[in-house]
Amino acid sequence: MTRLRVHAFTITLDGFGTGTDQRVDAPFGDGVDELHAWMMPSFARRRSSETSTPIGELDHGDSDGTGVDHAAFLAGEENVGATIMGRNMFGPVRGEWPDESWRGWWGEDPPYHHDVFVMTHHPRPSLPMDGGTTFHFVQGSPAEVLARATTAAGGRDVRLGGGVATVRAFLAEGLVGELNLVVAPILAGAGERLFEGLTALPEGYRVESTVVGESGAVHARVVRR
Amino acid sequence: MTRLRVHAFTITLDGFGTGTDQRVDAPFGDGVDELHAWMMPSFARRRSSETSTPIGELDHGDSDGTGVDHAAFLAGEENVGATIMGRNMFGPVRGEWPDESWRGWWGEDPPYHHDVFVMTHHPRPSLPMDGGTTFHFVQGSPAEVLARATTAAGGRDVRLGGGVATVRAFLAEGLVGELNLVVAPILAGAGERLFEGLTALPEGYRVESTVVGESGAVHARVVRR
Repeated sequence: MTRLRVHAFTITLDGFGTGTDQRVDAPFGDGVDELHAWMMPSFARRRSSETSTPIGELDHGDSDGTGVDHAAFLAGEENVGATIMGRNMFGPVRGEWPDESWRGWWGEDPPYHHDVFVMTHHPRPSLPMDGGTTFHFVQGSPAEVLARATTAAGGRDVRLGGGVATVRAFLAEGLVGELNLVVAPILAGAGERLFEGLTALPEGYRVESTVVGESGAVHARVVRR
Repeated sequence: MTRLRVHAFTITLDGFGTGTDQRVDAPFGDGVDELHAWMMPSFARRRSSETSTPIGELDHGDSDGTGVDHAAFLAGEENVGATIMGRNMFGPVRGEWPDESWRGWWGEDPPYHHDVFVMTHHPRPSLPMDGGTTFHFVQGSPAEVLARATTAAGGRDVRLGGGVATVRAFLAEGLVGELNLVVAPILAGAGERLFEGLTALPEGYRVESTVVGESGAVHARVVRR
C-alpha cells in the first residue's frame, strides 16, 4: 500500500523550516545557511560518483556510507514512485507564471526521475525534463493531489517535499504516513515554523525514535499512532 | 565569575514548554504528561537514597549513574548558589496572594537549600523553609533580579528555573550564560513555546552540542557565541 513519506525535512532547534526573505539566491531565506549542513557530505558523495543516480539503484553498501546522516539522506530515496511539493520548493516565482522559463532549481536532469506534482493555484502545462522527471502543476486539496500522485507512483510510495506550508497542510489532514524530521543544531530566530497550528497532531502521531547524526543534527521519526 | 545557567528545561519536539491549562493538579498543563519522563529514573534514584541531598554532595560516581539523561539531571545541581524562578514555577496561584498558605510544590524541605528568587508583581514576605531554602518574592527587571541572586549565590552560579515566559525573558536580554535544553520525544500540539519572539537569539547564542539520552530525549547545549 502506498504511503506518503516526508524525509530530510529540516528545522532549526528553535523550530523554523525557513528563515526570512526566501528568494532566488536564498531558497530557504536568511539565517539558515547551515540548515542542511547535515546532508552536504551526502551531496558531495553523490556528485563525485554520478550526478543523477536512478532511485532504487543507489549504492547503500559501500564502506563509508554507513553514517546516521547519510542513512537518513538515502532513506528518502527508497521505494519512491512520485513526489509532491509546494510551489516554493519548485521555485521563487510568485503569482501568475510570467512565462515558462523557470524550470526548477535542479537543472535539466532533476534528481527525481518520476512524476513530480507541484501544488499551485496558477495553471501551467506539464513540463517533461531529462531523466524521466515530469513536473505537473496541480490544484486541489492535499487529498486530491495525493490521489493523483498515488496513481502515478504505481505501487511505490509518494514522497512529500517542502516547503513548510505544504508539509503542514498534509500533516493537518492526517495524510502523512511518516515524518522523518531533522532538527539542525542551529538557531534561526525567525521564519516559518513547521509546527504551527497543528493542534491535533498528537492525536494522530507519536515520536517513534530520535538519534543524533555525525553533524549534530537530530533525526526524529514521527509515525502514526 | 557567576553565570546564569538553565538546566533540564524541557520542550516537546513541536516546541512547547507547557501544554494548555496549567493548574494545581497539572503544573505543566495538559498534553505533556511525558515531558519530564527522561528525569523520572533520576527522581526515583534520589527518592530511594535521600529525599534531599545537599547540592554539591551528590554522588556522581556510582556505577549505575552514568547515563546521559542522569548526567544532565545532575549537571543542573553543580555549583549552584541561588535560584531564580517565575511565579508559575512556584505555584498555580495567580494575582494577589489570597494568604500565605501556598508554600511551593516541594513540601517543607524544598530541594534547593539556598535562596530562591520568585519573580512576581505581588509582594509577599520572604518564606524560610527547612533545609536552608528561603523563597524571596521579588519584582524588577531580569537584570535586577539576577543582580540580587548573584549576590546571594556567593561566588557560585545562579540557576534559572521556569516557566517558559521567565526563561524567555532572560534569553531575550542575553542574560543566560548557558541553556541546557531538553527536547522530549513527544508532541503537544499547543501550549507555550520557549522560542517565541526571540528573533535576536542567533546573534548571541549558538548550539554547541546535541546528544540523545536513554529515554530518547535530546539534550542540546546552547551557549553564548
